[in-house]
Amino acid sequence: MKRRPAAVVAVGEDSHAVLRPLAGGEAEIASGFWAERQRLNRDVSIPHGFEQLERAGNFENLRLAAGTGTGAYSGLPLPFLDSDVYKWLEAASWELGRAHSPELEAQADQAIALVAAAQAEDGYLDSYYQVLKPDARYVELPMGHELYCAGHLVQAAVAHARVTGRSDLLAIATRVVDDIDRALGPTGRPGVCGHPEIEMALVELYRLTGEERHLTLARCFLDRRGHGLLGPGTYGPVYYQDDRPVREATTVTGHAVRALYLASGVVDAYLETGERALLDASVTQWEDMVAARTYLTGGVGSRHRDESFGDPYELPPDRGYCETCAAIASVMWSWRLLLATGEARYADLMERTLYNGFLSGVGLDGRSFFYVNPLQLRADHQQPWNNRGSAARAGWYKCACCPPNVMRLLASPEQYVATTSAAGVQLHQYATGRVRTAFGELDVATDYPWSGRVEVTVAETGTASEEWSLSLRVPSWCRGASLAVAGQERRDLEPGAYAVVTRSWSAGDRVVLELPVAARLTEPHPRLDAVRGSLAIERGPLVYCLEQADMPAGVELAEVALVADGELREGFEPDLLGGVVIVRAEGVGTTPREWGGWPYRDARDAGPARRGEPVTLVAIPYYAWANRAPGPMRVWIPGAAAASP
Amino acid sequence: MKRRPAAVVAVGEDSHAVLRPLAGGEAEIASGFWAERQRLNRDVSIPHGFEQLERAGNFENLRLAAGTGTGAYSGLPLPFLDSDVYKWLEAASWELGRAHSPELEAQADQAIALVAAAQAEDGYLDSYYQVLKPDARYVELPMGHELYCAGHLVQAAVAHARVTGRSDLLAIATRVVDDIDRALGPTGRPGVCGHPEIEMALVELYRLTGEERHLTLARCFLDRRGHGLLGPGTYGPVYYQDDRPVREATTVTGHAVRALYLASGVVDAYLETGERALLDASVTQWEDMVAARTYLTGGVGSRHRDESFGDPYELPPDRGYCETCAAIASVMWSWRLLLATGEARYADLMERTLYNGFLSGVGLDGRSFFYVNPLQLRADHQQPWNNRGSAARAGWYKCACCPPNVMRLLASPEQYVATTSAAGVQLHQYATGRVRTAFGELDVATDYPWSGRVEVTVAETGTASEEWSLSLRVPSWCRGASLAVAGQERRDLEPGAYAVVTRSWSAGDRVVLELPVAARLTEPHPRLDAVRGSLAIERGPLVYCLEQADMPAGVELAEVALVADGELREGFEPDLLGGVVIVRAEGVGTTPREWGGWPYRDARDAGPARRGEPVTLVAIPYYAWANRAPGPMRVWIPGAAAASP
Repeated sequence: MKRRPAAVVAVGEDSHAVLRPLAGGEAEIASGFWAERQRLNRDVSIPHGFEQLERAGNFENLRLAAGTGTGAYSGLPLPFLDSDVYKWLEAASWELGRAHSPELEAQADQAIALVAAAQAEDGYLDSYYQVLKPDARYVELPMGHELYCAGHLVQAAVAHARVTGRSDLLAIATRVVDDIDRALGPTGRPGVCGHPEIEMALVELYRLTGEERHLTLARCFLDRRGHGLLGPGTYGPVYYQDDRPVREATTVTGHAVRALYLASGVVDAYLETGERALLDASVTQWEDMVAARTYLTGGVGSRHRDESFGDPYELPPDRGYCETCAAIASVMWSWRLLLATGEARYADLMERTLYNGFLSGVGLDGRSFFYVNPLQLRADHQQPWNNRGSAARAGWYKCACCPPNVMRLLASPEQYVATTSAAGVQLHQYATGRVRTAFGELDVATDYPWSGRVEVTVAETGTASEEWSLSLRVPSWCRGASLAVAGQERRDLEPGAYAVVTRSWSAGDRVVLELPVAARLTEPHPRLDAVRGSLAIERGPLVYCLEQADMPAGVELAEVALVADGELREGFEPDLLGGVVIVRAEGVGTTPREWGGWPYRDARDAGPARRGEPVTLVAIPYYAWANRAPGPMRVWIPGAAAASP
Repeated sequence: MKRRPAAVVAVGEDSHAVLRPLAGGEAEIASGFWAERQRLNRDVSIPHGFEQLERAGNFENLRLAAGTGTGAYSGLPLPFLDSDVYKWLEAASWELGRAHSPELEAQADQAIALVAAAQAEDGYLDSYYQVLKPDARYVELPMGHELYCAGHLVQAAVAHARVTGRSDLLAIATRVVDDIDRALGPTGRPGVCGHPEIEMALVELYRLTGEERHLTLARCFLDRRGHGLLGPGTYGPVYYQDDRPVREATTVTGHAVRALYLASGVVDAYLETGERALLDASVTQWEDMVAARTYLTGGVGSRHRDESFGDPYELPPDRGYCETCAAIASVMWSWRLLLATGEARYADLMERTLYNGFLSGVGLDGRSFFYVNPLQLRADHQQPWNNRGSAARAGWYKCACCPPNVMRLLASPEQYVATTSAAGVQLHQYATGRVRTAFGELDVATDYPWSGRVEVTVAETGTASEEWSLSLRVPSWCRGASLAVAGQERRDLEPGAYAVVTRSWSAGDRVVLELPVAARLTEPHPRLDAVRGSLAIERGPLVYCLEQADMPAGVELAEVALVADGELREGFEPDLLGGVVIVRAEGVGTTPREWGGWPYRDARDAGPARRGEPVTLVAIPYYAWANRAPGPMRVWIPGAAAASP
């Protein structure tokens, strides 16, 4: 095996990455916002996940495949329950790398033993087909999810091998890949999986093993896609990105998670091969997504129908699907593009997505999860029967993809904090902790996102060079950022770029970055019809929302508007929602009561605009919504009509 | 058989209806808007439908059931293709009642012969179960659609029997009902169909046959519903209205067509039994639907997901589902409520739905149909694979419910024009033609909807009484309506009510109703978030829209706004879209180009509102959209920001 960092995307010196991730242990989040979430994930979510995998039958399915199970196969008609086990194993692996835990290790070993026992002698492993359709291996590729499950197994195995140094799970995964290679590889049948995922997993396996055939198999699947091999199926070729070759795609379309897992695999292949067409296509798609198909929260995938991307500017706040898994996939894709290009915009979108559209996917209790993350919930919300799009988080889902996906990301956020390059160290996300590189060890101290002050101290100088550059991302939302180093201050740093400090560093040197995080009002593009005339409150990287729970008694959330030129007042509330800065804004009542039974009227009947009674609006961070009594919520708040003279 | 009118809802003297429909032949639309559509339906759509039923395999499915077919069963996995044959037969029946046609009669007889041959000896008839699952009769009630298909057969048979006096199709339908009665009737298994439809059909069959058991069976199915008999199924009990008993429902929820067919059956049962709880519940639901779940076009059902109603005020213009069948069901429901109560609001909604959300469902060519009728289409529209929600109408659908449903409604619009009561005659919808009642014969002359002038002349006096009342509906959208009779004029008639003229009538007496139809701007309720800050153009009963096809070269529809206080200019264009009045409005360009790659910005960066270049906006009736090159369309137009000083 090559020596590579135990990172989420472990590119090495020989890759085409502009930036290189840090290895496990090289970055550490010690306290603050993300440390609290990591701890909750470790202490509550991951044990909860283990319980749920037993309860929902995922483990029993593996036992059935091994011949030791006694129950009925669980989760039908969904064929991909194995993947939840693998996502959980990946989460557990990252946590075992962070700190030893006999209990967690025992649970992980139990799960690995089940997986090992389930694997067929020839290496095949997929409990659904082993138990229910043994004669249909690799036949139902459009919706069978076999390679999707295998991809998650590989990702878990790579994490486990890197972190623990053990090879047992990796050996299982490698045999699965060998079996897939024989059946569907370059010399096998020309198939491809309906749900992309294995592509990035295979590239990562290649990074670990150094075996070209793993990269070749990944490229084989990427090259085959987009030529109609999957057939139209139930949802059409766009659904699973089989309508256009990956190098020709210019927009993100179809099922959002599929689209972004595929896009991640495309960039992974670029990172290892340097094939520019792959990167160029991916950048074009990313720009399309960001310009017209991304919510303010970073959430993506606007349609419940087919869990898919919609038309440009089709971004309804109420019916936005914004699957938690799609937010995670977006982070994965942007991270790879950041490594490939070094451009701050990718870290910007990661920040936005992590703090908002991703984090809303898990409750403050650590044991409840949203599948769907809309930006508005009305009174009398009609719950969908599948629970996706409910007013409250659920402990688990029949289609449980999101919860264990949350667990694996919250088990590894420190990996996204910093990178290195030949020039020095880049800080992309801000959290209190330590970054260890060949250039030196950096202590980062910050109360981000509540405060925008970030202190970076050189704890020890390194061996790499005397003069090197420390790059600090100035978020694109940030006006008036300043930086102080060695008694000198730089003001009005360019937003959406890196502030670069190049010097010879000594131990004790300190850089202080000040990112003004004061609350601000955000307006939407005129083409974004669904929120026309509305404003959102943001503060630092956080998107805010209003909840009915914070409205004065008797005032309905649906009947207030925001005074655009009113004052915004901020305050930290330590006992509210785990401790949050709230923003108070000036509001007024809006809805006149004389509409009667038809919600449209002749504009001539309207009369002059009237403002209702003043009301103080209390905004909380969007990620923390739905942690009190279920009730209406909105991110976009109607702007109050101009006052009558 | 009792003697009843050959009407869509043939209530008799002994019913609890406040108003009574006219019999076939008693109302006639001779020329004008609806006559043109009837003619196109007869000459093009219905023959097209017959061809499609052969091509799509509906007829062959019946042959397979009869043992004479040779092909594979068509339409899978959909089990309800028989229903399309029945809807077509109902359409053909109404047309045969209007005027003889040897070709149409021969086609109808062909279809009836296929149905007759397919029927099993014991009366059972459903080709899907006969061919594919002979042992599963009446077992898969949640999604099997057997009773739904039977309901459509009954409706076709009742229409056919009334119009032709023949009993062959009726005999088939009655034997099917007998079989259902044995299996699932009061003394059978306690089942109910997942798709309501048979309830209203059985009441109508009772009206024709006078046999109490048909009414009893309808009530049996209504009473059983809402108690969880169907189980949760794939979509949950709300989907098929099995969550609440029909007398306790207060809102319209779940699958829209199911909800409104059921509601129609509920009112039908009230009309024959007088059970007030049925009517009260239905009125409450109707008010809920109209107040917060109906589009300006009358379209209903806002979610693609489950083809269902959404939350209150969840009315996205772009993703509005507004299934054509749901518009038809809404008309059916409102018609029954109108008969039950005599209140103008039901005729108002029928008018709105017929001219807009229903009529958009069929192309000007008579052979293309929309399944989904949104109020906005953007550039780069992502077509759904199932074609439901496409940018262009299709000749047929795999799930073909809508096209033959359009055919049966367009074959019978004259039945909704007028009613009688003990007091006299009521005119609900305006069209040139003749209305024959016991009170007298009325000639109606109008160029409605293009003109709002309606002349009603008493052609012959009747035998019923000397003094009687002529009631003329003043639409709720109409301001300043006036009426002239016998040299006297009444001004400012109350909108949304009937203007009643009570007198002794003589032949040649004339009433002239003037309904100002000048174009107007309409604004949405403040809770209707999706179209905040936008205005719609309406003229008379017609909702208008903008299409890209009418924009000046180089101007994108998405980049214009409407000047709210600008002039609206009207003109009839005989060569455009079959002849329409267009409305020209003052517009301005809107979208600044400096947004870059992210569709949100700090409101402080916005600068003062600027108006772009003036542009003339040409609005066409919504029903006529998508009859030229496919392209963007919108009903709701952003209001222009106030001009800078």
